[in-house]
Amino acid sequence: MTEQHTSGVHHFASDNYAGAHPEVLAAVAAANVGHVPAYGDDPWTARLQDVVRAQLGEQAVTYPVLNGTGANVLALQAMLPRWGAVICTEAAHVNTDENGAPERVGGLKLLTVAAPDGRLTPELVDRQAWGFGDVHRAQPGVVSLTQATELGTVYTPEAVRELCDHAHARGMRVHMDGARIANAAAHLGLPLRALTTDCGVDVLSLGGTKNGLLLGEAVVVLDPSAVVGVDFLRKADMQLTSKMRFVSAQLVALYEGDLWLRSAGRANAMAARLRAGIDAIGSLDVVQPTEANAVFVRLPAHVARALRRRWRFYDWDAADGTVRLMCAFDTTEQDVDELLAALADALDDAPAPEGGAPATP
Amino acid sequence: MTEQHTSGVHHFASDNYAGAHPEVLAAVAAANVGHVPAYGDDPWTARLQDVVRAQLGEQAVTYPVLNGTGANVLALQAMLPRWGAVICTEAAHVNTDENGAPERVGGLKLLTVAAPDGRLTPELVDRQAWGFGDVHRAQPGVVSLTQATELGTVYTPEAVRELCDHAHARGMRVHMDGARIANAAAHLGLPLRALTTDCGVDVLSLGGTKNGLLLGEAVVVLDPSAVVGVDFLRKADMQLTSKMRFVSAQLVALYEGDLWLRSAGRANAMAARLRAGIDAIGSLDVVQPTEANAVFVRLPAHVARALRRRWRFYDWDAADGTVRLMCAFDTTEQDVDELLAALADALDDAPAPEGGAPATP
Amino acid sequence: MTEQHTSGVHHFASDNYAGAHPEVLAAVAAANVGHVPAYGDDPWTARLQDVVRAQLGEQAVTYPVLNGTGANVLALQAMLPRWGAVICTEAAHVNTDENGAPERVGGLKLLTVAAPDGRLTPELVDRQAWGFGDVHRAQPGVVSLTQATELGTVYTPEAVRELCDHAHARGMRVHMDGARIANAAAHLGLPLRALTTDCGVDVLSLGGTKNGLLLGEAVVVLDPSAVVGVDFLRKADMQLTSKMRFVSAQLVALYEGDLWLRSAGRANAMAARLRAGIDAIGSLDVVQPTEANAVFVRLPAHVARALRRRWRFYDWDAADGTVRLMCAFDTTEQDVDELLAALADALDDAPAPEGGAPATP
Amino acid sequence: MTEQHTSGVHHFASDNYAGAHPEVLAAVAAANVGHVPAYGDDPWTARLQDVVRAQLGEQAVTYPVLNGTGANVLALQAMLPRWGAVICTEAAHVNTDENGAPERVGGLKLLTVAAPDGRLTPELVDRQAWGFGDVHRAQPGVVSLTQATELGTVYTPEAVRELCDHAHARGMRVHMDGARIANAAAHLGLPLRALTTDCGVDVLSLGGTKNGLLLGEAVVVLDPSAVVGVDFLRKADMQLTSKMRFVSAQLVALYEGDLWLRSAGRANAMAARLRAGIDAIGSLDVVQPTEANAVFVRLPAHVARALRRRWRFYDWDAADGTVRLMCAFDTTEQDVDELLAALADALDDAPAPEGGAPATP
Repeated sequence: MTEQHTSGVHHFASDNYAGAHPEVLAAVAAANVGHVPAYGDDPWTARLQDVVRAQLGEQAVTYPVLNGTGANVLALQAMLPRWGAVICTEAAHVNTDENGAPERVGGLKLLTVAAPDGRLTPELVDRQAWGFGDVHRAQPGVVSLTQATELGTVYTPEAVRELCDHAHARGMRVHMDGARIANAAAHLGLPLRALTTDCGVDVLSLGGTKNGLLLGEAVVVLDPSAVVGVDFLRKADMQLTSKMRFVSAQLVALYEGDLWLRSAGRANAMAARLRAGIDAIGSLDVVQPTEANAVFVRLPAHVARALRRRWRFYDWDAADGTVRLMCAFDTTEQDVDELLAALADALDDAPAPEGGAPATP
Repeated sequence: MTEQHTSGVHHFASDNYAGAHPEVLAAVAAANVGHVPAYGDDPWTARLQDVVRAQLGEQAVTYPVLNGTGANVLALQAMLPRWGAVICTEAAHVNTDENGAPERVGGLKLLTVAAPDGRLTPELVDRQAWGFGDVHRAQPGVVSLTQATELGTVYTPEAVRELCDHAHARGMRVHMDGARIANAAAHLGLPLRALTTDCGVDVLSLGGTKNGLLLGEAVVVLDPSAVVGVDFLRKADMQLTSKMRFVSAQLVALYEGDLWLRSAGRANAMAARLRAGIDAIGSLDVVQPTEANAVFVRLPAHVARALRRRWRFYDWDAADGTVRLMCAFDTTEQDVDELLAALADALDDAPAPEGGAPATP
Repeated sequence: MTEQHTSGVHHFASDNYAGAHPEVLAAVAAANVGHVPAYGDDPWTARLQDVVRAQLGEQAVTYPVLNGTGANVLALQAMLPRWGAVICTEAAHVNTDENGAPERVGGLKLLTVAAPDGRLTPELVDRQAWGFGDVHRAQPGVVSLTQATELGTVYTPEAVRELCDHAHARGMRVHMDGARIANAAAHLGLPLRALTTDCGVDVLSLGGTKNGLLLGEAVVVLDPSAVVGVDFLRKADMQLTSKMRFVSAQLVALYEGDLWLRSAGRANAMAARLRAGIDAIGSLDVVQPTEANAVFVRLPAHVARALRRRWRFYDWDAADGTVRLMCAFDTTEQDVDELLAALADALDDAPAPEGGAPATP
Repeated sequence: MTEQHTSGVHHFASDNYAGAHPEVLAAVAAANVGHVPAYGDDPWTARLQDVVRAQLGEQAVTYPVLNGTGANVLALQAMLPRWGAVICTEAAHVNTDENGAPERVGGLKLLTVAAPDGRLTPELVDRQAWGFGDVHRAQPGVVSLTQATELGTVYTPEAVRELCDHAHARGMRVHMDGARIANAAAHLGLPLRALTTDCGVDVLSLGGTKNGLLLGEAVVVLDPSAVVGVDFLRKADMQLTSKMRFVSAQLVALYEGDLWLRSAGRANAMAARLRAGIDAIGSLDVVQPTEANAVFVRLPAHVARALRRRWRFYDWDAADGTVRLMCAFDTTEQDVDELLAALADALDDAPAPEGGAPATP
C-alpha cells in the first residue's frame, strides 16, 4: 500500500497533505498507557491547559476539538446569541470552505466584505457593522479574522489591535481563526500572545492539524466574558472526542516547546525560497505578498499542466490562472528547488496549441 | 505526567477509558509517510473501502468520521428529509448522550419508546410508527437500533431481520448504531454482515473508538438508495477530517483481520467472567442479561462507595443503585478478579451508618 | 362558494374549524384606517400592551405572533440556551403537533414524560429533571405545561404554583402553552393572572385563534429575566408580521373586555352539556374529566361511522376508538343536542357486520 | 385610539404601512361563515388553487403562508438539499431583511453578489455558480431574484428568461421573490405568467401583504419537480395557519379579478408622479430608475429633516443621504403633491449650519 509514497513526494497542495511530525506521533504513543477518564478529565488535557496558559496568558481556557471547522463554529456560536452575525472577509475559511457549517450547524449569519489581500480593516468592518438594534438585520456581534490569512498574508499586532479596539468600541467581539497562527508568529518573530491576548482577541481557534498534528485543534477562550456554554456546545456540535488525551497530547507536543515555531518557520522559509525562485524567473505574476507558507502565482495553462504531472497544487482562480503553492512543515529545499527547476523548464517550452500538435520553432 | 498511569489500573467506567490497541497505533505510524491528498483521496481510505466491503458486502460504501455522535447524526440526516423523525428507544445513545445533536445539528425529531432491555421490537416500533402523511407530525422515516444495546444486550439476527422487514414494510429505513457491533458479533459468533447487510440494515454506524482506536468511526451505507449527500453532509456536519488517512488506517487495522473480533471478544469474556463472579456471590441483583461487555448490577451504597476508592464506574440509575461495569479490549482476568474480591470484601463489611463511624460487630 | 356553509353546520373537530367572532372582525375593520408604522410600532400594539398588563400584571410584555407553534417555539427559544431542553408531557402540542418545529427551528430538545391526564406533576418533572451540568445531556431548562391540557383537563392554580416552585427550585423556568388558557380560566372561574403570573409562570403563550380570532397569538413575558432577545428571535423565527395592527387589534378585542371569557365559557358549557348527555346515555366510556371544551369518549366503530356522515371530529386513539369532540365559541345547544340525538340513534342501531348486511332482530 | 389616523396621513415609508384594501376586508368577512376544516381543507383554499392556476398556469400549486420571510424560506428550503446554497444579490430581502431566517431556520447558505441596480445577470450569477461537486463548498442550487427588485427596478421577461435558462443549464433552479410582482407586471403591462411560468421560473413567492392584504403570501410551485415536501415544511417552518380560509380568501380577492393590478398600478403611478415631480425640481439626484413603486433619491440632510416632521420614509444609505420613498395601493395624487411641495419648500430653505443658528442671507 505504501509503495507509491516511499518516493517521498512532497506536494504543494496543502499543509493538510503532510503527515504528522514524528514528535507528535511519539507523544500519542506515550499517552497510550492505561485507562484514564474520557472526555477530557485526563492528565494530558490538564497539562494542555498549562501549556496554553504559558503561551497565551493565565486567563486562557482551552477546549480541544477535532477539526478547524469545528473550532470555528464552536467559537463563533459560543460568542453569539441566536440572532448574531459574524463579519468576515469573502475569502474567509468560514465563508468558503466549510460548506455552510457556520450557517447550518451554528445558525449563524456571515456578513462578508471583499478584502483584496485577505486582511480586514476597520473600514472594511464598518461596511457591515451597522443596523444594531434593528430586528430585521442579523446583529453583527463578532469580527472574525484569519491569521495568517487565506491569502498567505499576515496581520501585524498593530493591525490586530486596531481591529479589536474598533470591534470592542462597537460592542462586538473578536474571533481569530488561527489555523495558521504559528506561521504568522514565525513570520513576525513574535510569541503567540503578542498576536492575540495582547491585542485584545477574545477567542482563538488554535491550529494544530496544518502544523503537523494527526488531527486536532483547540478553541482557546482568552476573555471568559466573551463566551457562554463552550463545554455544552462542544458536545452538541459533535466536537467532543472521548479519548481526548490523544488530541491533547498532540497539542501539548506542539505547543509545550518550540515545535510549533520550528515547523511553521520551516514551512514559511520554504515558501520564501519558492517565492524568491519565482521572482528570479522574472516573468511570472505573483499575486500576494508571501508572508506565511503560501505563494500565489499566475501560471500559463501549459505551465500548470506540466507541473501537475508530478505535483498537486490548488487552482485559486481558474479564470486568471492563479494557483496556490503551499509549503508544509516537512517541505524541503530540494522539494522547492525541484519545483522551481520544473517551472523554469515548463516556461521554456512553448505552449502546445489546444487540440493540435506541439508548436515547432 | 505518566507516572500515575504506570500502575496500569483498568477502570470499569467505559470502553472509552481505554487507550488504543498497539496494532492500531502501529498502523497510524505506518501511514505517516510522505504527502497524500487530504480529505479521503488517499490509499488508506481506498483500502478501507475494500476492507469494509469484504466484511459487509460489495455494495457497502464507507465514510470515515470523527466520533460516534457524528456517525449517528450524519447517517440519520442522510436517511431523512427535513421533516423526518427517528424511532428509537428512550435509552438510545442518540437520545440520551448526544446533548441533542440529532435535533440541533441534524434538525431531526426523535420518537422514543421505553424498551426494558434496550431492544426495540416491531410492537414497540408501532407505538410511534403512525401518522404517515399528517403534516402536523414529524414523519417517522428511520428506525434506529443500537447493537449491542446501551444495556449490554444483543439483538439476534432474527430480531434485526424482523425489525428491518417491519420498518421496510411501513416505508421506513433502518439505521444501526454499531458503536459496539463487534461485541454483538463476538457474542453471537457471527460475522458482521450476518447482523447487518444480511438482515436488511440500510445504514450502519460502524464503531471504532470503543474497540481500541485512538478515535474514529465510520458511516457505512449498505443500501445506497437509503441515503443522499453523505459526502456533502459529512463536511457540513463538521465530521470531515483533512488527514483522513490517519482515521482510515486505524479502521483498516481494526477490520482488515480479526483485531475487531479479538478485542471485542476479550471485552465480552471479561464481562462474562465478572458476571459469573457476581452471580457466584449470590446476593446481588444483576439487572440485565450480560451479552456484550457490560454488567449492570445494583450495589448497596456502601459497597459502591468502597469500590470507588480504586475504580471508576458509572451510576446507571442513582435511584435504585444500579451501576454499569464496562469491560474494554484490554481488561484482564486480574482486573476482574481484583474487582470481584473487593466486591466480596465490601459486601462482608457492614455498611457505615450515614454521617457516623463504621459499624462494629 | 359559500352555499355549502350556509347550512351552518358546526363540527366537533376543532376550535380551529370555527371562524372569527364578529367583534373580532369588527376590530380588524376598525383598525383599517390610514397608514401606521409597520412591525408593531402602531397604536393597536401599544394598546395591547396595556390590555395584557391589565390582565397579567404590570411587568408583562406582549409580543404578538402568527400561530401557536410560533408562539411556543419563540417562547422556548428565548428561555433556553442552545444546549437547553424542555420537559413536557408526551401529549404536549409542542411534542406531537408541530412537526418538530421546536427541534428543527428552535434547535431544542424535548424531554417527555407520560402523563395520563395530560397534567405534569413535580414527580413527573423529576423523571427528566436530572443530569444538570453533564455535557452529554441536553440541559433541562424549562418545564412547559399546557393549560387547558391537550386532554381537556385543567391545572388548578395550586398545581401550577407547585410546578413553578418545583421548577424554580431546580433552576428551571416555566412556560405555559396557553392556547386554551381562557377555557381553563372559565372552568376555574378565575382571572387569567391567577393561573399564570400569580403562580410563578415565567412566559405564557397567550391563545387567540382557538378562541375566535382570524389568526394570532402572543408570547407574553411575565418575568423579563426569563428571556433574551424575544424581539430579534420573533423576526428570525418568521413570526413577525408587518401589518401588526391587524393581529394586535384582534387580541385587544379578545382581551380588553370579557370576550375571551364569554367565548371560552360558551365552549366549555357546550362541552359540559355534551358530556352530561353522554353520561345520561350511560353506555359509553368517557376517558377524561371534561373540564375545558373537549370530551374524549370511546365510540363503537359503527357509531363513529354513523356520526361522521354529518360531523367531523378527530380520532384520538384509533386503537381503542377514542374520539375527541371539541366545542368552539360558537357551538350552540342545538348543535350539541343534535349530536347527542344522533349518538343515541346510532347506539340503538345494531352494528352492521363487516362486509355484510345490517343485522336483523 | 383611532383619532390620530383619521387625518389620513399616507406615509412613504413602506407599502407595509398601508392597511388592507376594502375588497380584501370584505372577502374576509364573507369567509366568516360556519365551520370549515382547518389547515387548508376548505373551499376558499380550493378556490385559490383555481385562481392562481388561471394566472400562472395549470401546473401551479399554491401554498398560502403567513409572511414574506416565511414564503421565501419555505420555497428555498423545498428547492434545496441540506447542503444547498442560494445565489442572490447583496440587497436581496432574503439577505438583508430576514435576520438570517434563511440560514437559521432554513439551514441555507446565501452566496451574494453586488448588483448595482438590484438585478442579477448571468454574469453576476456566474461569480458564485462554481464549485459544483466540491464538498467544501455549499452547493449552488437556486438562483433567487426579486421582482420588482428591492431597488425599485423591474426585470424584463427576456431578462428573467435568460437567467432561468442560464441557471437551468448549470443544474440550478430559479426562485422569484415576488413580494412586489404585481408592481413589476403593472410596470410592464404584462400578465403575471409572462414574468414567471413563461420564463421558466420554478417557484414563486407570490406577494400579498404589500399589495393590500391584512397579511398573507403564498408559495406557488410552478414546476413540481423543483420541490419536495412543501406541505410538511410549511408546518415545520411555522407557516401553516389553522384558519387558512382567512388567508386564502384574501388572496382570492386579490388575484381573482384585477385587484392586484389596480392596486399595484396605482402605487406605481404615484411613484412615477413623485419621480416626475422630483425630476422637475431638477437639483436632486435620483439614484435608480423608477419602474415599480419606489423612488430612491439623495436628500440634503436639512431637507430630509424637514420632511420627517410630517412623513415617515426610510434611510436607504445613511452615508450619502439616499432615502427610499415608497408608494402604496392607497397613495393619492394629493399625498404625492403635498410631499413634492414640502420638498420644494425645504430645498428653498438654506440648511441650518450644524450646531448653530439658521444661515441668514
